[in-house]
Amino acid sequence: MNAVELIRRKRDGGELSAEELHSFIRSYSEGSLPDYQAAAMLMAIYFRGLDGPELAALCDAMLHSGDVVDLSGVSGKKIDKHSTGGVGDKISLHLAPAVAACGVRVPMISGRGLGHTGGTLDKLEAIPGFRVDLSVERFREVLDDCGMAMAGQTDRLAPADKKLYALRDVTGTVESIPLIAASIMSKKLAAGIDGLVLDVKCGSGAFMKTRAHAHDLARTLVEIGRRAGKRVTAFLTDMSQPLGRWVGNAVEVHESLEVLRGRGEPDLVELTVVLGGEMLVLGEVAHSVEEGQQKIAAVLADGSALRVFERCCELQGGRLPATTRGWFADDAVKVVAARAGYVTAIATEEVGLCGVAIGAGRVRKEDAVDAGAWIEVKKKLGERVEAGEEVAAFSSPRNAGSHERVKLAERIRQRLEAAWTIGDRAPDAVTLIGEVIRG
Amino acid sequence: MNAVELIRRKRDGGELSAEELHSFIRSYSEGSLPDYQAAAMLMAIYFRGLDGPELAALCDAMLHSGDVVDLSGVSGKKIDKHSTGGVGDKISLHLAPAVAACGVRVPMISGRGLGHTGGTLDKLEAIPGFRVDLSVERFREVLDDCGMAMAGQTDRLAPADKKLYALRDVTGTVESIPLIAASIMSKKLAAGIDGLVLDVKCGSGAFMKTRAHAHDLARTLVEIGRRAGKRVTAFLTDMSQPLGRWVGNAVEVHESLEVLRGRGEPDLVELTVVLGGEMLVLGEVAHSVEEGQQKIAAVLADGSALRVFERCCELQGGRLPATTRGWFADDAVKVVAARAGYVTAIATEEVGLCGVAIGAGRVRKEDAVDAGAWIEVKKKLGERVEAGEEVAAFSSPRNAGSHERVKLAERIRQRLEAAWTIGDRAPDAVTLIGEVIRG
Repeated sequence: MNAVELIRRKRDGGELSAEELHSFIRSYSEGSLPDYQAAAMLMAIYFRGLDGPELAALCDAMLHSGDVVDLSGVSGKKIDKHSTGGVGDKISLHLAPAVAACGVRVPMISGRGLGHTGGTLDKLEAIPGFRVDLSVERFREVLDDCGMAMAGQTDRLAPADKKLYALRDVTGTVESIPLIAASIMSKKLAAGIDGLVLDVKCGSGAFMKTRAHAHDLARTLVEIGRRAGKRVTAFLTDMSQPLGRWVGNAVEVHESLEVLRGRGEPDLVELTVVLGGEMLVLGEVAHSVEEGQQKIAAVLADGSALRVFERCCELQGGRLPATTRGWFADDAVKVVAARAGYVTAIATEEVGLCGVAIGAGRVRKEDAVDAGAWIEVKKKLGERVEAGEEVAAFSSPRNAGSHERVKLAERIRQRLEAAWTIGDRAPDAVTLIGEVIRG
Repeated sequence: MNAVELIRRKRDGGELSAEELHSFIRSYSEGSLPDYQAAAMLMAIYFRGLDGPELAALCDAMLHSGDVVDLSGVSGKKIDKHSTGGVGDKISLHLAPAVAACGVRVPMISGRGLGHTGGTLDKLEAIPGFRVDLSVERFREVLDDCGMAMAGQTDRLAPADKKLYALRDVTGTVESIPLIAASIMSKKLAAGIDGLVLDVKCGSGAFMKTRAHAHDLARTLVEIGRRAGKRVTAFLTDMSQPLGRWVGNAVEVHESLEVLRGRGEPDLVELTVVLGGEMLVLGEVAHSVEEGQQKIAAVLADGSALRVFERCCELQGGRLPATTRGWFADDAVKVVAARAGYVTAIATEEVGLCGVAIGAGRVRKEDAVDAGAWIEVKKKLGERVEAGEEVAAFSSPRNAGSHERVKLAERIRQRLEAAWTIGDRAPDAVTLIGEVIRG
C-alpha cells in the first residue's frame, strides 16, 4: 500500500477499494502508518466524503481491528440502542432493562460524557460499586443471566476506532458524517449484535444542530448497518431541550429509576416506549411497532423492568440504595426568570456545558466527574413562568476552591439564566419523535 | 494558540490572522506542534486555499523561522531567478554568470533534483570539487568577489519550509498553489534579495500541466513578492519538451558552457536573454527590457559571462577541465523512430523519469545520482524524422547489476520510444515565452 497515493486519490475525489481501506486501517492500527498520514486522510475524507462501499469497508476494517464479541452462545436476539448524545439523555438506563424484560437481549457498549453531553458509563458509576469494566466473558455471563449488560469499550474492541477518534479530536476532523457513522457502527457491530436502534439527536443540545445533518447521519448509519447485514432503524428525535428534568449523573440514575417505577417524566417515557417498541420488533418478540410499544409500557408499569435493572446492578457489583436522595449535592443555587412569559427556547448545549462547569461532566477525557453534581430543569419549552420564578436550579460547584466557589456559582447562574429565552407567546409544541429511517 | 480551532477555522473556509499563522509555524518549527496537526492544516489549506494576507503571513513566518541572510554589506542590487522545475533546465548555470557580468549580483539558492525534474545543485556537483554547502559568510564572500554564488538551502535557511515540505511530500499536500508559492518565496526572500525573476514552467514536463494552474501559481508568487516589498516578475514558459538537447548532470553543465561560449542551443539562449534582460531591469542596470536583453546577449558573446562562471567555480572549489567530454558515460543506447513524420509531442515528464531510471535523478532525497548519466534529445517538437532515424539516445544504465542492465536499458528504450509522438503534419511552432506578470 502506498499511503500517499491513497491520500491523493481521496483528496482528488476518487474512490478507495475495500482492500485499500482495510490495509490503511490495519497499518494505522499496528503503528506502521504514522499519525500525520492518517490525519491528512481524515481531512481529505472530511472534504470528499465516503460512498456506500467505502463506508462499509472502513467500518468493517475498524471493527475487525480488535476482538469481535461472539454472543452466539447467548440465546435470543441481541439488540442494542445508540444515542448520538444529548443533555439529560438517561434513556439507556431504563430502556435496556425494559427491553430485556420483554425477552430481547441488550448487550450495551456505552461511552463516557465528553463536552456538553453526558455518558451512560458515568451515570452507572454513580451507583456505588457498579463496575463497567467487564471482561468479555463476564459481559456474556451478565447478559445471559439478566438479559442485559452494560460496559465500556475495552481496549480490544475496535481499537482502530479508539485511535482514530483520538486523532480526529486533535486534528479538527470530528465533524464528518461518514467518520462519525463509521466510528459508531464499528463499535456497535463489534459487540456482536443482531440489530440496532439509533436515536439521532437534533437541535440545540445535539452535535447535529440541523435536521439536514441529523438526517444525513441517520441515513449513513442505517446504510452501514444494511451493508453489514444487520437490521438497523434510526429515529430523529428532538434535543432542543434537556430530556426529562435532571442533568447530572446520580440525578439521572434517580430519574431513570422513577421511569422504572412507573413514575417517569412524559418525554422520557414516550421516547423509551418508541425506541423499545422498535427494538422488540427487530428482536422478533413483537409483530408490530404497536405491540412492541405496549409491551414496553407494560414492563415499566408492572415492575419487571425494574427487577431486571436491579439484577443487572447486582451482577455488575452495584448497590442500589432504598433512596437515592443521599447521592445528590444538597447546596442548591436558584436560577429565576427575569420576566413573565413562556419558555420559547433553551440553549441546551449551554446547559450541558454548565453541567460540565459544576463538575457533572468533563472537558478532557482524563477529568474526573462529580457524580453528585446536578442541574434541575424546572421549566421546559412552552411552559408558563412568572417573573422571579425558578426556571432551573443547580448544585453549588464542589470542584473549585472555597474562595472560587461563590464566583463560579454566580457565573453559572448567569449563564443558565441566559440559556432560557422567555417570550410573550407559547411556542408550538415540540415534536419529540421525528423521522424514522428503517434499513 | 489553539491549534484545533485554527485547523477547524481554515477547514470551514475562515481566515487565519498573521499572528495565528506565525504562531502555528513557530510551534511547528520548534516541535511543540505535532506533525499530525500540521498535516491536517495542510490538507485544509489544500482545499480552502489562502488569501493574500494569509499567504504573505505564512511566507513571512516561514522565512523568519531561521536565519535571514543579510547581504547589505555586498554592493549592488541582488536579483535571483527561480524556475519551478523542468526537464533539461540548466538555465541557472549560465544565466547567473551572464547577469553578474552585467553588474547585478546573483545570490542563488538552489535545490536538488527530485522526481522527474533536475536540480541545479546536482548539476554543479558534476564539476569535480564544486562545493554547494557554503556557509553564509563564504556565500557572501563569493558573491562579493565574482558577482554570483550558488549554494543549497542550509539547515538555518527557512527551516520551517524544509520541515513542512518533507511533511507535504508524505501527506499528499504537495500540489497546492499557495503552499508551493509560500515554499518558494520563503527560501528566496530569506536569501536577502532585492528582486526576483520567476520562470514558471507549463506543459508535459512541468509540475503545472495546464496554463491555468501555471498562471495561478505565477500570480500567487508575484503577489507574495509584492506584499513583501520586493520587485518580482514571473514568466510563463513552455515545458512541453526538454530545454536544450541534453538531460542529465554533467551533460547539462557541458551544454551550459556551450551557451557561455556563444554556441548555445537557440531555446536556451532565447530564455536566458529574456530572463536575464528582466533581471537587469529589476537590478537597475538596464532602463528597458530591450537594453537588458542586448546586454545579456553581449556578455554571452564576448566571453565575459564565461569568465564569471570560471571564477565562481574557482571560488567554490570546482575544477573546470578543458574538455568536459570525459564526464559522460560513453555506452550509448539509441532510440529510433518507428515511422517517418514530424515530432508532434514529447512526453517530457516521462523523459525526466527515464533520466531518473538511468541514475541521473533520484526517487528519494537520500538517493545518489550518477553525474555522468545522460539523455540526448535528437529530435525536438516540429522536427522531421525518418523511419529508423534516432529521436533520442541515452547512456546505458550503470546503476544496476550487470544482469539487470540489459533489461533495464531495453525497458528505458521502449519508454523513450513511446515518449515521442510522430505525426504526419508538422505541429504549430512552440511559443517558448508566454505571459509575463509583473509585480
